[in-house]
Formats: sequence, structure tokens, C-alpha cells
Amino acid sequence: MTGFWTTCSVLLLIAWSSRADNAEIPPLSGSPWSWRCEPKGEGLYDICVRILTPENTATPALSHPACRLTCGKFGTLWPKPKSVNLGKQLSYFLPHSISHTFVASEEDTLLLTEAFKNFMKILDTYDSEYLLGKLTWKSPEPIGYHKVNINIHIEGPSKSHLGLDITDEKYALVVTTDLCSQTSTANITAKTFFGARHGLETLAQLIDYEEIEKKLMIVNSADIKDEPAFPYRGLMLDTSRNFITVEAIKRTIDTMSANKLNTFHWHITDSYTFPLALKSLPKMAYYGTYSPRQVYLPEDVKGLVEYARVRGVRVVPELDAPAHVGFGWQWGPQEGLGNLTVCVDQEPWQEFCLQPPCGQLNIANQNIYTILGKIYQEMLDMFGPLDLFHFGGDEVNVHCWNTTEEIVTYMKSKNLSLTDESYYAQWSQFQNRAYDLLTEANGQVKIPGIIWTSHLTEKGHTNRYLNKEKYIIQIWSVKTDPLIKELLDQKYRLIFSNKDAWYLDCGFSAWVGEGLNSCSPYKGWQLVYDNSPKKIALNVSTEVDFSLILGGEAPLWTEQADSLTIDGRFWPRGAALGERLWSDPDHDWRDAEYRMVNHRQRLVKRGVQADRLQPEWCHQNQGRCYRN
Amino acid sequence: MTGFWTTCSVLLLIAWSSRADNAEIPPLSGSPWSWRCEPKGEGLYDICVRILTPENTATPALSHPACRLTCGKFGTLWPKPKSVNLGKQLSYFLPHSISHTFVASEEDTLLLTEAFKNFMKILDTYDSEYLLGKLTWKSPEPIGYHKVNINIHIEGPSKSHLGLDITDEKYALVVTTDLCSQTSTANITAKTFFGARHGLETLAQLIDYEEIEKKLMIVNSADIKDEPAFPYRGLMLDTSRNFITVEAIKRTIDTMSANKLNTFHWHITDSYTFPLALKSLPKMAYYGTYSPRQVYLPEDVKGLVEYARVRGVRVVPELDAPAHVGFGWQWGPQEGLGNLTVCVDQEPWQEFCLQPPCGQLNIANQNIYTILGKIYQEMLDMFGPLDLFHFGGDEVNVHCWNTTEEIVTYMKSKNLSLTDESYYAQWSQFQNRAYDLLTEANGQVKIPGIIWTSHLTEKGHTNRYLNKEKYIIQIWSVKTDPLIKELLDQKYRLIFSNKDAWYLDCGFSAWVGEGLNSCSPYKGWQLVYDNSPKKIALNVSTEVDFSLILGGEAPLWTEQADSLTIDGRFWPRGAALGERLWSDPDHDWRDAEYRMVNHRQRLVKRGVQADRLQPEWCHQNQGRCYRN
Repeated sequence: MTGFWTTCSVLLLIAWSSRADNAEIPPLSGSPWSWRCEPKGEGLYDICVRILTPENTATPALSHPACRLTCGKFGTLWPKPKSVNLGKQLSYFLPHSISHTFVASEEDTLLLTEAFKNFMKILDTYDSEYLLGKLTWKSPEPIGYHKVNINIHIEGPSKSHLGLDITDEKYALVVTTDLCSQTSTANITAKTFFGARHGLETLAQLIDYEEIEKKLMIVNSADIKDEPAFPYRGLMLDTSRNFITVEAIKRTIDTMSANKLNTFHWHITDSYTFPLALKSLPKMAYYGTYSPRQVYLPEDVKGLVEYARVRGVRVVPELDAPAHVGFGWQWGPQEGLGNLTVCVDQEPWQEFCLQPPCGQLNIANQNIYTILGKIYQEMLDMFGPLDLFHFGGDEVNVHCWNTTEEIVTYMKSKNLSLTDESYYAQWSQFQNRAYDLLTEANGQVKIPGIIWTSHLTEKGHTNRYLNKEKYIIQIWSVKTDPLIKELLDQKYRLIFSNKDAWYLDCGFSAWVGEGLNSCSPYKGWQLVYDNSPKKIALNVSTEVDFSLILGGEAPLWTEQADSLTIDGRFWPRGAALGERLWSDPDHDWRDAEYRMVNHRQRLVKRGVQADRLQPEWCHQNQGRCYRN
Repeated sequence: MTGFWTTCSVLLLIAWSSRADNAEIPPLSGSPWSWRCEPKGEGLYDICVRILTPENTATPALSHPACRLTCGKFGTLWPKPKSVNLGKQLSYFLPHSISHTFVASEEDTLLLTEAFKNFMKILDTYDSEYLLGKLTWKSPEPIGYHKVNINIHIEGPSKSHLGLDITDEKYALVVTTDLCSQTSTANITAKTFFGARHGLETLAQLIDYEEIEKKLMIVNSADIKDEPAFPYRGLMLDTSRNFITVEAIKRTIDTMSANKLNTFHWHITDSYTFPLALKSLPKMAYYGTYSPRQVYLPEDVKGLVEYARVRGVRVVPELDAPAHVGFGWQWGPQEGLGNLTVCVDQEPWQEFCLQPPCGQLNIANQNIYTILGKIYQEMLDMFGPLDLFHFGGDEVNVHCWNTTEEIVTYMKSKNLSLTDESYYAQWSQFQNRAYDLLTEANGQVKIPGIIWTSHLTEKGHTNRYLNKEKYIIQIWSVKTDPLIKELLDQKYRLIFSNKDAWYLDCGFSAWVGEGLNSCSPYKGWQLVYDNSPKKIALNVSTEVDFSLILGGEAPLWTEQADSLTIDGRFWPRGAALGERLWSDPDHDWRDAEYRMVNHRQRLVKRGVQADRLQPEWCHQNQGRCYRN
């Protein structure tokens, strides 16, 4: 063996010196095109240039993915890490020659085992021929392929669920390669499983598949230190307007994890349907689903929560109230509980809500609180432990309540006026009782509640109606809304979802009437990328306590999306959101475009039906698709 | 048996009298909701109303699909037939109890055999449990299920390929049911296979699957006479900007056939790529593809043409020239043929074309004609026999030619001026030589050529440059373009693809620069539906020879679409196009909305990832999602 090492050292030196740039990878066969990384100098992005493969093989010529992996400071990494230093060499390796070690608590080791399985699945997706064992090089092991060791060390005390603590998700990833022993080693260190998992995702992005040569390749050396800019990085999915299958939700969570998004906000119910099966209230789903198949059983929910956890994603459930309720609540009178809701499906709908069908809880009926308590209890059982809960709380229509005899009588019986303000006060009381019911169901442990901006958060209202210790405000108005300054000045914690940039349902045909849908036009990935919560805050306020900005979230309301079509709505725009919230770069979309287009292709390789942003030509010819 | 028949008659009468409306279908289990068809009176559409299932079973209560099949004059038929009379009863049946007879020529019988297989596949897709044999009722055959006989009679002489003759696609479909023998019979008569196939598609739309009860059902009686309003009903797919897999093209053709669209216009090549493998010119694809995998082999093409034919779809290939060429033509100098193209990939691209990369044929190099002749010959071998060919012929940039030294020298050598008009004349000569080359390759049999509107078709230009006997003009400007009147007055045949209504790529983010893409906003299905070529013509001209309007086509340029995402771009908007071109109804989208939303669900059941238009709630609650 010593002799081998000696010989090896000599051989390697020779190999090394003849391999000026990336010469380890031979030119393509079957195509006249190759790529060469062209340095652009300080402050500019190196780009891969397509060239006719030179006949003189001394000139390095690479396949497209090989060139992209190491060209430019950030290679193909998405979202871009805080600090990164990538080598320029690549090694080939085989999936079955990967070994790993974990140094972590027992619980974290179990989580890492699952995360590692997902990492290996990503490698498998690069080409199913691996799985089919069709490739001749699989056995015996060919010369020139590297072994890959992956070592993960979780240094902190075990933390099995995500919280809002920003430090939790930090990680370091160092890749080194010993050419003599033909071994690449990746060391990931983190304080929590969640950080380590991010490191594993980054490592997966240092690997790509050479389609022509049918080889996996890994960047030979890397030094990465990384942590998120914001602790709350979310997507919202509405499963009431159209039902979304568990499978499609899982696909969404998979793709979130590929973009280091950590919060899946699940808008489960609305006036349309109540697709959540509850053991203590079976009639909610019986009346409330589009069909008996279109329902989430408690085991579905528990399965999804665990599925998300091992992918670094927390699930924040929303039970929207007191508006946006309707189907599912019809059984009250039958059971002697009276009308639990009012204005459900009432016509003309334009008078009672913003879109058909209408519906609000009947605040004159005290039974709603008993029922809410039961729902919260079951939700905690399914989704818990929770560090956040979403109360919805948007778009209450006072006219609905004020034209319902039972409610008007109730207001009068309490000597309350019938003004908007009077109803807002009732609404606020409802909200606070709901908060207490959740706390009670959670064994008196308080959970921060998220709540949409609404009449309760109008100028001068918020601190009258909503306690800033209890509630986090989710901004869904526009980036110039003066409310943002007021809330920041009053020290409310904020999540940004301003509809002028982050509403993913906009820009399609109207679904009531003709023309385009109401929040048109379409929000392109560039707009999504450039929507910086910090810059928004600085635009409306000179003194900003940035710790109040927890992050942001892009909602997908599903009037016009379902299980078959959510991929194209979420991706790759969700990836633009991901980099904004993880890296919060100072630059705009222009400096992200090459990586974005490449990353879309990565998502596609992983089975996501992400929308196409550009002709493949632009991807293969970096810098050539531009507007002056 | 006689006894059985006697008893049967008596029993059936009883059954019939107790089955006031659709009482044959029992109420759903597992859901409190049922549907009831509510007549709305003359001139209005009957609608299915969702109700709580009445406990009194004498009141008819139906599943949603059962109600929809027979409610309203057109039930769920799409596109709506010219003349239709549907019964109100349904029968259950099993796929394996379908029998069929064909009366047709030997060739048509072979085509019908293929079309019938596709029909049976549609039934299978309603629930894979059929295939898995999981349902207990499959054997032995249960009582109460009908036999279904399908008889197809092709009366005319065999016509194995589509032409522009409008009468070819006519069909009649009559469904009758003998309750005593529990047999439903569907008779389809047509003059050609293409008409008969449409009849089979219509028959498939008289069938649906009852998900809850897991039963197939068919409308008991129907009398339908049908024929298309326009002979040319197309979709265009661009496979050069992004490659589209053969599988995705097949899926597109399947869905076209479900919408009685009959023309797949294949924009194969462009400046981006030349993905067509040619035996006599292998370097075209060698240089011209994004990767060696992203290519159409001659056998792929032949397979697609046949796949389309048995689905009633002609394939019209386009070889765009003399602009929109580029990658693939690089090998000229190597082979001593000189530069075949000019301005390829030239910068700044804005000066030489409308989007990167630029490229035009080198009209100074006579070798281009030899090569074009070879390409046409191979295309005819793959795609033929052809009744139409698309020459492209749009967006020539005179500045490109006029700044290319070789071309300027050539113009001067022929004593030609360097004005736009002078170049247009050269372009026209090029076009006519191309036409002759195609004719020569086709054994001197002339094929009408389609050509996009361009500088050659500008006001006063067309009849100078393009012979109306040879060329059909495809309008891609806007519906108010005065050119439409001029061309109609001059007796040019037209195909409408006006971009203000039928461009399916519009409304997404820009792919060069930021903001929205250039033909934004998005063209919603309502706009697609209301774009009537006849009304457009009547708006610009008082006297219109409608026989000149061959029909229309919605193009999908694929800067921002690929195999994974074309379904959502094409569908269900392509269905709106289908009804406009097949039925050309006098009414607008409002009278089609209920059927459209239902039809989208049908496409989804058949495996198409069509975009969602509305919440399922609107589908289940007809008439409730409206704008005043």
C-alpha cells in the first residue's frame, strides 16, 4: 500500500498539472458543444460560455452541468449562502460509495437518518438508470471514481421542533478531497437538526449529474458558513377553495425544503369547505367536504406534520374565523345548538362578502365557543406541539352581522350600538376568547397567534383590539401601506405577504365574470425576488427594529389552482421567495437570474412541475438573454 | 325466456312509473349532498342544484355527475353539437359488456379499431379500479346493468387523411335504450372515419363515472347531428425555444381529439434549435439541438403523424424561413458550402431581430436552396401525405441582411437597390423558390402553403408578393387589423391567430428583463371563447365571403413552457377555442361556462393537467359564482 501511495502521489501530481482548469471532465460525445467558465473579474459574475468543442483536448471543455457547478462565486447554490468559497475541481462518484457518520443525540440521529434518506433519494432522481442497475460501471467499481464520506455533527442540545429562534438553522459545510486516496469528505456542523438538514441540502447542490456521460459529480472543495436572514420563511396553501391531495402537499413540502423555506402555513378551512375530519365533530367534514374522498383524516395530518419536520419545515395550521366559515357548520340546528353561522351562501353575495359563498360565525350564539374549543383541541392533537397558530381573522363583513336578526337582537340586548366600531369590538372579543380557548386546549401554554391585517388593524385600531404580546400581524396589503410603519412603531411583530408582490394566484382569467382575476397582473419571479421586507420597512419608516420582522410568506389562494396545478404556481417563484428570506441579498433579481434558471432545472429533475422561465437557449448561453 | 320478457315488461312499467325523473340512481352514501336538475324555462339553461339529500326517497336526488349528464339541453357535451336532443334517463353499465360493429371499408375499419381502443381507454381512466379488478360486481354480472352496443357505419368512400373539405367531419349519433332487454344501442353514421371518430368522442361524453357508487353510466337516449363550423381548427406548438417530448406532444394530440380540434401545427425549428434529425443532413441536428437527447428522429415523427391521424388530427409541419433560423446551420463553411445563415447569435441582438438569438438565411448563397430541397424532401417523407405545409415567413429583419457584407455585395452585383422594398422582393423570390422546391419534392403536386402575416402582407403588399392560389395567410396581428379586410377583399384564404385573444404564452413574467412578457396580459378562456373569426371579419368588412375563413389556431410559443407545463397553457383554453371553431355559437362565454368548468374536470379525469378555472364550489353550485 505504501508503494501505491508513493506512486499515486507522483501520478497525481502529473494528473494535476495537466488538468489546468476542470480538465478532469472530458469533452462530450454526441454533441459539438462544450462549455468553458469565463472569469468576468471582481464584482461581476463568471459565466459559462458555450463553445464548439476544441479538437485540441489540452483546452479544457466541459459539459454544461460540470461548468455550472463551479463557475461563479456561488456555483449553482440556491438560496445563496452567507459565506461561500467553492473550489474549481470536480470528482466523479457513485451513489453506493457514499458513507456517512452522525454525531448527535439519539433523537437528532433519528431525524438525520430520515433526512439522509431524502438526500440519497435526490441523487437517485438524477437518473433512474442508477436504480435499474443498467450502467455497466456499477460493479465492479471503476477506476477514477471517488469515495464520498459525509460526516454530520450536531453540537447543540437536541431541539426537535422549529421555533422562531434565528440561530437554530445555522450550519457550516466543509468539503475537502484527498486525491491520493480518491476520497471526498463533507463535514456538516450545526447546532440543531434543522441547521444540519440545511447543510445536507446545500451539499446536494454541490452535486450534479452528467447526463451524457451518466456520471454523478461533486465539487471537490467547499467552505460554506450559512444562516438565514429571517426565522419565518413560508408558503401558504389554501385547501378549502379547492381540495389539495396529501400527495401534492408532500411534494410542496419537499420543494420547500429544497429552498430552505421552513414554514408551511395551511389555510385548511374557509366558507367553501371544511375538509378536516374531527373525531369529536364528525359532521363538520360530513357537511363540509366537496366529496367524502376530499378530506384530511387525523392520520393524514399527523403524517404530514412529521413529513414536514424531517424536511425542516414547521406546519402552522389556520382556522380562519369569524369570517370565511360556511360549509361544514350546517348541523347546529339539528343538534339543538342553533345557527352556528350566518349569511352562509346568502344572496346577493356581493352584499355579504367579497366572493361567493358568504358565511360568518354567529356571534350571538355562545355554542360557537364550545365548538371552537373542541376544534382547537383536535387541531393541537394533530398538529402539535405548535409554536405558532394562525387565527385567520380577515374580511369580516359587518353588514352580514348587522342584517341578521338574531345578531341585531343580541347586540341590542347587550345595549350595544350597531355601528361598525361596535361590531369591531365584538369581533375583538371573539378573537380574544378564541385565543383563550386555544391556550386552554394547549394546557394553558400560550402560543403566539398570527392574524391577517383587517378592519381590526386599520390605522389607530390595532393596539385597541389586538395585544402585541399575543398576536403577530401578517401584512397582506401593499408594500406602501402606511400601516406597516404604525405597526412597527407600536412594536408588533410582522410577517410580510404583501399582495402586490407575493400573491401567487394573480394574473389569470377572472373566475366570476370576465377579464382578469382581481389581484392581476401576474407576479413574476423578479418581483417576488425584489420584495425585501427590510427595504419595505425602511421605505415607510426611518427607524426600524428589524427583529420585529419575522419574515414573509407567499400565499396561494386556490380559486384557480388544485393538486394538479399548484407546482406551477409555487415554483420557481417560491424559490425566489426562498432566497429573499434566507439570504436577503442587497442586489436585485439580475444578480440571481443565472442561478434561478439553473435552479428551476434542478427542481424539475427532482420531479417538480415548476414553470419554465426562459428558453433552454438562455440557460445554455448565460448572459445572452438580456434587455438593454 | 318468453315468460321472463312478459314479467319484465310489467316490472319495467312499475319501475318506470316510480322513477319520475332520474330516480334510477339512488342517493349518495357518505355525503349529505345530492343534486337535482332544475328547469329554468325556454331560452335559459337548466342547472343542477345542490340540496341536502331528502329522507323521502320518492324525491329524486342524484349524484353530481349523474345530474350533469342530462341536465340542460347540451348536458356535458363539449364542443356543443349543431343539433342535439338528450333524454333524461341514465343506465349503468360495465366496460366489458360493450360490444361493437363496424360497417366500413377495410382501411376505415383499421382506423376505427384504433379509435375504438382509445374510446375504451377513456372509460378505463374513469377509475383504475376497473383495471385492477377490485370491484366485486365485475363477475358475475350484476342485475340492473345494461349491455351497450355501439354500431358505426361509414357511408362514404374511404378517405384516410383529412383535407380542407368541411363536409368530411359530419356525423350523426343516435342512442336508444330497450329497457326490457336492458340494452342501450349507440348508432354512429358518418361519411368518413374522421366524422365517425367525432361521433365516438361525443358518445364518450354521454358517459360518466359515478365515483361514490363506482358505476359507469350512459345517457339512455340521444339524437345528435353534428358538423364543424370551420374546417381548420388548430393548435400550434413551438418545439424550438424549448424542446417538447414526444410523450407531451401525444398528450396534446389526445386532448385536441377530445375537443374536436383537427390540426396540430408543429413549429419545429427556429433560431434556437433545429431538433429534427435528417438522414441526408445529419449535421443540422448535431449542431442544432440543446442536447443529443432533445431530438425528433424520423420514426418519432412518423409515429406522431399516425398517432394524430387515428385521433382525427392532421399534422401540419412548419419550417420557418428565411428568418427564425440559426442553430443547426453552422456546418456550411466546413463542407465548403459557405455561410448558410447570417446574423446568427449576433450582438447586440436588438438590432438584428426581435428576441435573442438572431439568425436569417443567407440569400446570397444559392446553396441554401439545395439544402431546403433536401429538408422538404425528408419532411414530406416523414409527415406526408400533406394537404398543407407551413412556410413560417415572419419577422424578417432587413437590417440584418443589409449589414451583412456578403449580402450587400450580392444585391449590388445584381444591380438591386438596398431599400426595404428591394429586400422584400428578394424575400418574395426566396419564398416562391421555396414553394417550388416543396412542389418538386412532392412530385410536382402543389400543396397550399400557410404563411404568417409579415412585411410581405402589409397594406398593398400581399398580392404583389404572395400568390393567393398558393398561400393561405395566418393572421397573428390583432382583431382590428385593417389588413383583414384587404386580404378578404382580395380573396385570400385566412386562418385566424390574432395575438390579442389566441396567444397562449402571454401574461407571465418577462424572460428578457423584468415586468411582464411582451404580449401580456394573460388571455383568459372567456376571451379565447369570444374571439369569433366571423364576427372579426364582419367588424372590419361589410361583405365577407365566409368560405375564405378556413378557421383558426391558438399558438403556443415556448419561451416559457416546456413538456412539463404545456398542459396548463393549452387547456382548458384550447377547449374554448375548440367550441368556437367547431360550433361557432352566437352566444358568448357566459352560456358556455357551466359546461366549460365541467369539461375541464373531464380533461383532468383523462390525465390532462388542465388549469383550474374556479373553485369546485362553483362547479357543484351552478349559477352561484357570478358577477352582477
